[in-house]
Amino acid sequence: MTGPEPKDYLVVFSPSGKRGRFGDGTTVLEAARQLGVDLDSVCGGRAICGRCQVTVTEGELPKLGIESGAAHLSPPAGDETAFSERRGLAAERRLGCQAKICGDVAIDVPPGSQVHRQVVRKSFEAHDIELDPVVHPYYLEVPEPDMGDPRGDLERLREALAAEWGIETPYWDLRVTQELQRALHEGGWKVTVAIHNGNEIIAVWPGFKGRLFGVAVDIGSTTIAAHLCDLGSGEVLASAGRMNPQIRFGEDLMSRVSYIMMNPGGDRELTAVVREAINELVVEVADQADLAVEDIVELTLVGNPVMHHLVLGYDPRELGHAPFALASDAAVSIPARDLDISIHPGGYAFALPCIAGHVGADMAGVLLAEAPWEREEVSLIVDVGTNAEIVLGNRDRLLAASSPTGPAFEGAQISSGQRAAPGAIERVRIDRDTLEPRYRVIGSELWSDEEGFREALPSGGVTGICGSGIIEAIAELFLAGVIDPNGMIDGESAARSGRIIATERTFAYVLLDGEPGIRILQHDVRAIQLAKAALYAGARLLMEKLGVERVDRIRLAGAFGAHIDVRYAMVLGMIPDCDLEQVSSAGNAAGTGARIALLDQGARTLIQRQVRAVEKIETAVEARFQDHFVAAMAIPHRSDPFAKLGEVMSLPVRKPDNPRMNRRRRR
Amino acid sequence: MTGPEPKDYLVVFSPSGKRGRFGDGTTVLEAARQLGVDLDSVCGGRAICGRCQVTVTEGELPKLGIESGAAHLSPPAGDETAFSERRGLAAERRLGCQAKICGDVAIDVPPGSQVHRQVVRKSFEAHDIELDPVVHPYYLEVPEPDMGDPRGDLERLREALAAEWGIETPYWDLRVTQELQRALHEGGWKVTVAIHNGNEIIAVWPGFKGRLFGVAVDIGSTTIAAHLCDLGSGEVLASAGRMNPQIRFGEDLMSRVSYIMMNPGGDRELTAVVREAINELVVEVADQADLAVEDIVELTLVGNPVMHHLVLGYDPRELGHAPFALASDAAVSIPARDLDISIHPGGYAFALPCIAGHVGADMAGVLLAEAPWEREEVSLIVDVGTNAEIVLGNRDRLLAASSPTGPAFEGAQISSGQRAAPGAIERVRIDRDTLEPRYRVIGSELWSDEEGFREALPSGGVTGICGSGIIEAIAELFLAGVIDPNGMIDGESAARSGRIIATERTFAYVLLDGEPGIRILQHDVRAIQLAKAALYAGARLLMEKLGVERVDRIRLAGAFGAHIDVRYAMVLGMIPDCDLEQVSSAGNAAGTGARIALLDQGARTLIQRQVRAVEKIETAVEARFQDHFVAAMAIPHRSDPFAKLGEVMSLPVRKPDNPRMNRRRRR
Repeated sequence: MTGPEPKDYLVVFSPSGKRGRFGDGTTVLEAARQLGVDLDSVCGGRAICGRCQVTVTEGELPKLGIESGAAHLSPPAGDETAFSERRGLAAERRLGCQAKICGDVAIDVPPGSQVHRQVVRKSFEAHDIELDPVVHPYYLEVPEPDMGDPRGDLERLREALAAEWGIETPYWDLRVTQELQRALHEGGWKVTVAIHNGNEIIAVWPGFKGRLFGVAVDIGSTTIAAHLCDLGSGEVLASAGRMNPQIRFGEDLMSRVSYIMMNPGGDRELTAVVREAINELVVEVADQADLAVEDIVELTLVGNPVMHHLVLGYDPRELGHAPFALASDAAVSIPARDLDISIHPGGYAFALPCIAGHVGADMAGVLLAEAPWEREEVSLIVDVGTNAEIVLGNRDRLLAASSPTGPAFEGAQISSGQRAAPGAIERVRIDRDTLEPRYRVIGSELWSDEEGFREALPSGGVTGICGSGIIEAIAELFLAGVIDPNGMIDGESAARSGRIIATERTFAYVLLDGEPGIRILQHDVRAIQLAKAALYAGARLLMEKLGVERVDRIRLAGAFGAHIDVRYAMVLGMIPDCDLEQVSSAGNAAGTGARIALLDQGARTLIQRQVRAVEKIETAVEARFQDHFVAAMAIPHRSDPFAKLGEVMSLPVRKPDNPRMNRRRRR
Repeated sequence: MTGPEPKDYLVVFSPSGKRGRFGDGTTVLEAARQLGVDLDSVCGGRAICGRCQVTVTEGELPKLGIESGAAHLSPPAGDETAFSERRGLAAERRLGCQAKICGDVAIDVPPGSQVHRQVVRKSFEAHDIELDPVVHPYYLEVPEPDMGDPRGDLERLREALAAEWGIETPYWDLRVTQELQRALHEGGWKVTVAIHNGNEIIAVWPGFKGRLFGVAVDIGSTTIAAHLCDLGSGEVLASAGRMNPQIRFGEDLMSRVSYIMMNPGGDRELTAVVREAINELVVEVADQADLAVEDIVELTLVGNPVMHHLVLGYDPRELGHAPFALASDAAVSIPARDLDISIHPGGYAFALPCIAGHVGADMAGVLLAEAPWEREEVSLIVDVGTNAEIVLGNRDRLLAASSPTGPAFEGAQISSGQRAAPGAIERVRIDRDTLEPRYRVIGSELWSDEEGFREALPSGGVTGICGSGIIEAIAELFLAGVIDPNGMIDGESAARSGRIIATERTFAYVLLDGEPGIRILQHDVRAIQLAKAALYAGARLLMEKLGVERVDRIRLAGAFGAHIDVRYAMVLGMIPDCDLEQVSSAGNAAGTGARIALLDQGARTLIQRQVRAVEKIETAVEARFQDHFVAAMAIPHRSDPFAKLGEVMSLPVRKPDNPRMNRRRRR
């Protein structure tokens, strides 16, 4: 039999450039699927989800081999009109599942209709996030059971998934089977399922459910932060943070590990409280976004090795002493309920991998955010906590180490030191001549010499000085000629100001009068010198291993990196030489990494591969580290002529009275 | 450089017949591994486990190309001698991991040293079980952590597993990581791990642990049975059973489903009590075998569809009405903890698949035990419960159906009926002339006319009549000429004995005098007729579908099959014509199937494939079922001439007084 040749038309999709010929009446969605064009759909072409919106491209058509693109789709009708009335459809927009091809046509898929679209990045973020979450919703109709078909409802659902969406699901959560029949009856045999990892059904809801959500959690020793994201758009809908409740077992990491060593079962206590805090944060962000906790189907976790171990229920005590053996460095993807974390009962938690005993999943998150492997330039990435986690390298090679900075940068082991919290002095300026200070306190926007400063102080007043404050104070004292390159507070400065006072054997600077007041003791300067020498030595060691004398860029991650004024870090010689404009804060890069792992499953594979490839350097067994450390104690640890310092840094420098100030450390 | 040619020797293994040449000093275990000979080892060649025992074969050697086999292994020494002193080593036995090849030699691997050995079967079991459990122990030494190797302990363990045993483990239970460091320290870096499914680490113990255990659970509506097996030998070490505690929610299945329909949350109650009973049984069998519950690493479950659903936490209410939709028919392998069943925390539970809405995982177990697909002859396999589950077929084709027998065969809906339990009459003989009965009661070995019968009765005395008792009573009354082929109790028999009494509209037989006593009412005969007609009609329907007029063999599974005297089943016409010697009990075939699935992972794949292939027939929608049912109401439903009945059955027959007895139902 022969009949009239079936008509077919040329269809060209942008931005992919994919093209093909399709029969009269083929929907745009169907054509896109056949060509492998990235056009989203949750409802499977039922004009419910609105994810498959497209526009008809005008102009440039002859170049594509199309004479005219207008009106070569069927006009909006029926379900599409109803959708437009119900949900609104922008002018020119068409539903790809409803618009039928009835002539040659060029179709544009806008970013919002692409499954693998880019998420708009924030200013401090190093690169775009590609949206490809590990969980996707699929809407489908399941055939009703029938006496002639004795298969179970789950089996009919799985077959419908395979037939309608091409998805084979050899795995499913037991709860899905437990709840399936109720959902099928309630939804009139129409349900939405969530598929994890492309092969496991983890959730089922009656009827249509177009949006699923995830939470990225960054577990710091001090604070825990959670970010709720729409897995369909990548958008951050809510964020919340709270103090890590483990603080009551020890201010810094090592005192928490000590607590566990001293108290049998202490690891389980610390595990329980951190999981509880995460649960509270999950509820908080869900409330903010007016969602139910059960709408959250995925969670990612980053944290330093001790936090990583505790949240996963691994005893961290081996991390408290050499050889600092991790229970496991592997990334973990497990049902969140196995961590006692309450999201959707079928939802998974993904913990990023650790890199080494002191370089944790937080640094893995930072690496995901920074992607130094994409660059030709050599990046130095530093995340400062109780230890400084350091990564150096570029597309060819990456090295990682941790340096034992101790907690001085966090304000601990400093006479008036405290954690960065309201009431802590965070910024300090000292007059080069009079040595009179100005300062700013966390929780207030005003400098101490501005009007209304006292009234604007947090309720507890000034309570201490935090890491960035002590660094600025010491650097300013150095720039004012009070501290010499060896870190000694110069007693002769007492002649210049009553703020320089004698202590038992040395001198001190009185930043804030009163008893006890806030003083910078010789001991404090020494503590910061030790910390900065450790940080610098770690960086130098890696530079030596990589065979470079300079780094092209420096990224400072975490709260410390965000708060510190990099000029002062350079003055003190915390970080190696680098163009100042190439030194910047990476923001909360660990948290960003957790968000990337939440939104892009490819990033999970990538980070595991990269973490394996990173060369891990153990500073404790490297003799050269000690050499670098000793050499790095002095201030400033820079090769620039001292005279140029102020210019480069845009900081005033006092020409030293004391001739010792001119003695430069030999490099 | 050249040197002397390395010597190598011919090694021939039996029973495999595998052979190869190996260098001087190669161990027998190493040679076996290289040739792929099935030689067990848990300790990896450290003379600890004793699993790799072999003997040197004498005689027939020239046929193998070997001149003499004696003394061509190194003599026992060192670790092997120590093992022999510690654990005992039979004469002629050598440890394959220690004995070194030093000449041509023939080696026999005895069954106990084979990994995939056959388990000795019981008399009623249809075929051998091949031992290939889903969980295996592996002993290994893990390198200690080192500052120069920052990988986690888990990662070093996984690498050791890959290096020493060739096993890649992309999966592991979180608890393994949580407990690993403690186990490594306690075991001095020597541990035993349990691997599930060849790719997941589910448990870790310090030091050497050579034996792992599993439990097969058969969940009947009435009783739950558990069998504890050594996964290394297949041996059943302990068995226990207890009443299904769901009985308090309803005696039979449908009343339990009704309870759930009437009581919101009732499904969770029934789920909780059955899981609790399983937990109690697990403790009981572990205690019997002097093991800890944590030594049990695998559990298998069979049960009818309602039991299957309830233990897995699926609401079974859809099974209570047409179209009898299963939530899922699939086999399920999940951590036992997800079912609140306490074995080793990493242990899995495997539930066999269901076949159809009324043909459950119990029948899947029966099929595994019976393996009708291995035979040329056509088997009819019947498992009687509230419904009769029926499978018919052979290697070419299998069909399954369930027949709505109702609970009469279980003693329910019978005037004096009760469950098969101590005190129930289970055997009945009736004198063909005097109509005086003899009977036996569950819990006693004596017939009612034997001396000491009263004293030997269970404490509650005679409490009722169970399924097998009522069947025998009715068949005996039929053979005595009291009941006619239509099932009517013949009032004229009252002339023969005072045991035939008039009731309101019909007659009854007084089996046991007194008030209320035990009587066989017309109503009871009718109930059994309906049940047996349903069973027979189901079998006939399948025979018709398969196109056979006779079956070659009949296997009666379950408690009913074990208790019933098949001669009476034939007299009543419960089952189709078949040579009497080809009708037999399959024992507790469902439980055997659970044990097979426990011991042989290949059986799990097999049963899932077979269950998919079985043609499911829904009796309720088959018009022919009704025809068969109506035709099957009469007694006896056999084509043998009535006169031959007694001879064939070895049962006395009374020549009927009543001419109606000679009217045979037309076939």
